[in-house]
Amino acid sequence: MAKKRIGVVLAGCGVYDGAEIHEATLALYFLDRAGAEAICMAPDIPQHHVVNHITGQEMPGTRNVLIESARIARGNIRDLATVSATDIDAVILPGGFGAAKNLSSVAFDGPRATVEPGVAALLRALRAAGKPIGALCISPAVVSRIFADQGLTLTIGDDAGTAGAIEAMGNRHQNSAVDAIVVDERHKIITSAAYMCAAGIADVGRGIEQLVAEVLRQA
Amino acid sequence: MAKKRIGVVLAGCGVYDGAEIHEATLALYFLDRAGAEAICMAPDIPQHHVVNHITGQEMPGTRNVLIESARIARGNIRDLATVSATDIDAVILPGGFGAAKNLSSVAFDGPRATVEPGVAALLRALRAAGKPIGALCISPAVVSRIFADQGLTLTIGDDAGTAGAIEAMGNRHQNSAVDAIVVDERHKIITSAAYMCAAGIADVGRGIEQLVAEVLRQA
Repeated sequence: MAKKRIGVVLAGCGVYDGAEIHEATLALYFLDRAGAEAICMAPDIPQHHVVNHITGQEMPGTRNVLIESARIARGNIRDLATVSATDIDAVILPGGFGAAKNLSSVAFDGPRATVEPGVAALLRALRAAGKPIGALCISPAVVSRIFADQGLTLTIGDDAGTAGAIEAMGNRHQNSAVDAIVVDERHKIITSAAYMCAAGIADVGRGIEQLVAEVLRQA
Repeated sequence: MAKKRIGVVLAGCGVYDGAEIHEATLALYFLDRAGAEAICMAPDIPQHHVVNHITGQEMPGTRNVLIESARIARGNIRDLATVSATDIDAVILPGGFGAAKNLSSVAFDGPRATVEPGVAALLRALRAAGKPIGALCISPAVVSRIFADQGLTLTIGDDAGTAGAIEAMGNRHQNSAVDAIVVDERHKIITSAAYMCAAGIADVGRGIEQLVAEVLRQA
């Protein structure tokens, strides 16, 4: 049987201005361990900004989302604009502020956020084809914005502000713990809070391990 | 019982100019899962250069090893110069070209490489205190250079050139597979080839999982 091909959408490299590195890496780890093929991808766009991860302050310079994401992918990455829904059996979006600053404007605009058009188009095509979508950490808010007013059930843990934004988008938020997943069987959306909870990497890994298994089951 | 405190020495953020992200993340994951506390650290020095991880070519700009390493550590990182051997029970060095370009000049000078003085001093103090040292991928060559002519047994997999450099430093190289570790009981040095072998992340994880367990056993 051919390996299942699972897209992993990256948003840069680092929790404060890109993809959350642990979440992305553990998703790749559990996918490979389960015998699936990960197809890493990112949009070829500038980062919103560059953040010094020690101070949390913005630092000078510009970086490109695709080029920085390639660090997590060890160079094996595709421009998201070239990926079609027929190329993959499912998709997983790790979190990190890059999802909310580069892939969308969720960090700034909450329920009225815009989403990078290529990401939105790919997720819409995947959903139309009945392919599952997994999202970690803050990324469920991006998924919620793409599919506004469709009654999805999602989790970002228990952060009231973000949960409220998801509800304001016309979807349902379900509180959950870091080591759990929320499965919307009807819409084939699987979410886990990951580092939206104050947690260690092993607990985050427990949620991601279950999310990967469920995405593969539905793919 | 107090948690064991294990130093994780980072060399930037990305396989071609920094720390190998998967190796570093999986080391943190297995340490946390085993109930140990990871103390991430890196020297506060400029990177040798910045590499575009898609093209493999050098790109403009300068980056700082400590600031970029903080991406992997989610900001929870110490300047290696401030860490004493009494602060930790053992140390693990993930690989990536950063170990061979930033922490040392192994990539350029082979057996005659220099090692960043803070890294060399910390590892010497740890070894003098009988604390174990774990090293992944290319990092065993850095360890070999610090402890030249001491008859350590190490592995970097089966790359003949790097193995020859380790032998030329007066240590012994033992060929090994990606999912194995080499344990030098006498010198308390534990090594695994990780991405020095052409392998997937799950196989790399198998080696790192064993290395972490053995470092903790000896710590």
